[in-house]
Amino acid sequence: MADALVARGDEILAGNADDVARAEADGTPANIIDRLRLTTERLAAMAQGLRDVAGLADPVGEVVRGSVLANGLELRQVRVPFGVVGMIYEARPNVTADAAGICLKSGNAVLLRGSSSARSSNAAIVAVLRDAVTASGLDADVVQLVPGDTHDSVKALMRARGQVDVLIPRGGAGLIQSVVNESTVPVIETGVGNCHVYVDRAADLDKALAIVLNAKTHRTSVCNAAESLLVHADVADAFLPRVVAALQEADVTIHGDAAFGALDGVLPATDDDWAREYLSLDIAARVVPDLDTALDHIRTWSSGHSDAIVTDDQGAARRFVAEVDSAAVLVNASTRFTDGGEFGFGAEIGISTQKLHARGPMGLPEMTSTKYVVIGDGHVR
Amino acid sequence: MADALVARGDEILAGNADDVARAEADGTPANIIDRLRLTTERLAAMAQGLRDVAGLADPVGEVVRGSVLANGLELRQVRVPFGVVGMIYEARPNVTADAAGICLKSGNAVLLRGSSSARSSNAAIVAVLRDAVTASGLDADVVQLVPGDTHDSVKALMRARGQVDVLIPRGGAGLIQSVVNESTVPVIETGVGNCHVYVDRAADLDKALAIVLNAKTHRTSVCNAAESLLVHADVADAFLPRVVAALQEADVTIHGDAAFGALDGVLPATDDDWAREYLSLDIAARVVPDLDTALDHIRTWSSGHSDAIVTDDQGAARRFVAEVDSAAVLVNASTRFTDGGEFGFGAEIGISTQKLHARGPMGLPEMTSTKYVVIGDGHVR
Repeated sequence: MADALVARGDEILAGNADDVARAEADGTPANIIDRLRLTTERLAAMAQGLRDVAGLADPVGEVVRGSVLANGLELRQVRVPFGVVGMIYEARPNVTADAAGICLKSGNAVLLRGSSSARSSNAAIVAVLRDAVTASGLDADVVQLVPGDTHDSVKALMRARGQVDVLIPRGGAGLIQSVVNESTVPVIETGVGNCHVYVDRAADLDKALAIVLNAKTHRTSVCNAAESLLVHADVADAFLPRVVAALQEADVTIHGDAAFGALDGVLPATDDDWAREYLSLDIAARVVPDLDTALDHIRTWSSGHSDAIVTDDQGAARRFVAEVDSAAVLVNASTRFTDGGEFGFGAEIGISTQKLHARGPMGLPEMTSTKYVVIGDGHVR
Repeated sequence: MADALVARGDEILAGNADDVARAEADGTPANIIDRLRLTTERLAAMAQGLRDVAGLADPVGEVVRGSVLANGLELRQVRVPFGVVGMIYEARPNVTADAAGICLKSGNAVLLRGSSSARSSNAAIVAVLRDAVTASGLDADVVQLVPGDTHDSVKALMRARGQVDVLIPRGGAGLIQSVVNESTVPVIETGVGNCHVYVDRAADLDKALAIVLNAKTHRTSVCNAAESLLVHADVADAFLPRVVAALQEADVTIHGDAAFGALDGVLPATDDDWAREYLSLDIAARVVPDLDTALDHIRTWSSGHSDAIVTDDQGAARRFVAEVDSAAVLVNASTRFTDGGEFGFGAEIGISTQKLHARGPMGLPEMTSTKYVVIGDGHVR
């Protein structure tokens, strides 16, 4: 599949050029067009992604637990594929190859329902991948593009309980909410991140500054970027001028409470700001009187993706880890580390923010179910 | 909680007597009334169930995996409670105590929505359990009975996404289907079992006979009872007369294909029979020409709960284990072994027949989610 993507790059780039031309004619914003656009370099990166997945350990057949029962029955719980995975996603055509590779490596068939804005790109990519699947001796139908540019095909996917085993929506909050609300097929919710950094009274302020800057500005459009900053009142005098200056230096707009608002250039924050996933050079900022208030704030506003504390106080770190109910809780580390690649999974199909089945970055094992295998010798109860 | 159930048994039995009287006045069938009725012995068994759960290892905090990344970050995936579990169940009041115990032991709060036919029993049990929870120093609201005898409270539970973390319906296929179709809260589907026993050409027929009889007749009202029998044509002449005689001796009605129909007393089977979960002394029976046809039959009709092969042929056993896509696949063992108690889990909240999160018997670990804990020392990307 990787070789074919490179060898037949011209077909894919031609399909992509159609999509880009249509998007430009429609007046699509430049940043969306940039996400849509493929280049030889981006195709090479997609191919490398497939090679990376191919090199990972096969999760299917892994014995999760096993024992011999007192009556002599051999019991094993083993990983098996889900069966059919439905992916509903927006814009970026690289997801088409990523998802096909991860699903195939984990033994699943995949139904790909990309954005209509990328339809020519996706059709070209899937045609190439299917030929490669056939050439490898498998049935090409293990990778399928779901037809239709209307919402009807999404509806059909969401109602295909018993035929589709799991649906994974990837995209904006609107897409994910509509799938969660309408699907009878089990859904794994991914990716909305209103992530917090809390700078404790016992924080090393140099480390705190580096973590806040990294979490906010390293890459703003991703779900593990920080969107809210909480600072303990005891270090506000020392930390606020430094962090505000550094963030403003990095072109970040600060939406602050009264304490932050006392500094030049800080805009007033409302509840909307505490709730926002900006995905831009904006951050909401608040001074809290104590750890309890920080925990309350996070309990109220966090999307349960990734929240970090900066502290040298072991007791505060332990409480934060125990009481913040998020997919990832970080101590003295940037929220940007919540990532399948950073965690060493080698591949990631998304970051689950729900509690059922998978939570946090999902690699190959998270794309499997299990079955129990019971071996006896005529055993009856 | 166990002590309180026994000490205040009179209150609970009085509540139960109201439910039984109402059911009798309504002309409820005797077997349903039997499931509803509590006795001192059944209360003692409920109390023992709670003691058993209390004695199990606490799943919360278990480190599922952990490592130190190349950059020095410490990464741990640890078990955490879901948060709030909603149970929607029918008839049997013992589920009230079982579910409360399992949810509490796994760190979850539980919302119990029992059948209106058991409302007085459930109210009495929950009142006693809540007092015991308070006495232990916890907030009584971790165990709550959902009020209301109408469908409205079920609807509210199914729409409480963000407030209820997971819903577990236990009961008949109708209840489970309606929850699966209407709930926006993630659901774990439990318990419909159209289980098969396939007697291969290479089966030890004595063991096959024992397994068929045990799987069908040991207890008929449970989801791991066998409902369908498949026999390889090569052993039909030797096995059919024996198995038909033995099943009929045990008062089992056989709904058979043409081959079985040639024997006295066998009723003709239709597609309805292949699909049925009888939960009674009935079995569907068919002769198949080969293993492939048996696998096809199971693929078409199995509910994906538990399916067994009886064979001494290692190749046939391997194919059956690999190709039957069910929560439990058994070789030379009765389907009745698919059970949390038999598997050594010590407690079971139900048997999942879905592929997401948990599949097969669910013990305490299946009642938890996980979170990633990431510890650094000022780490940034």
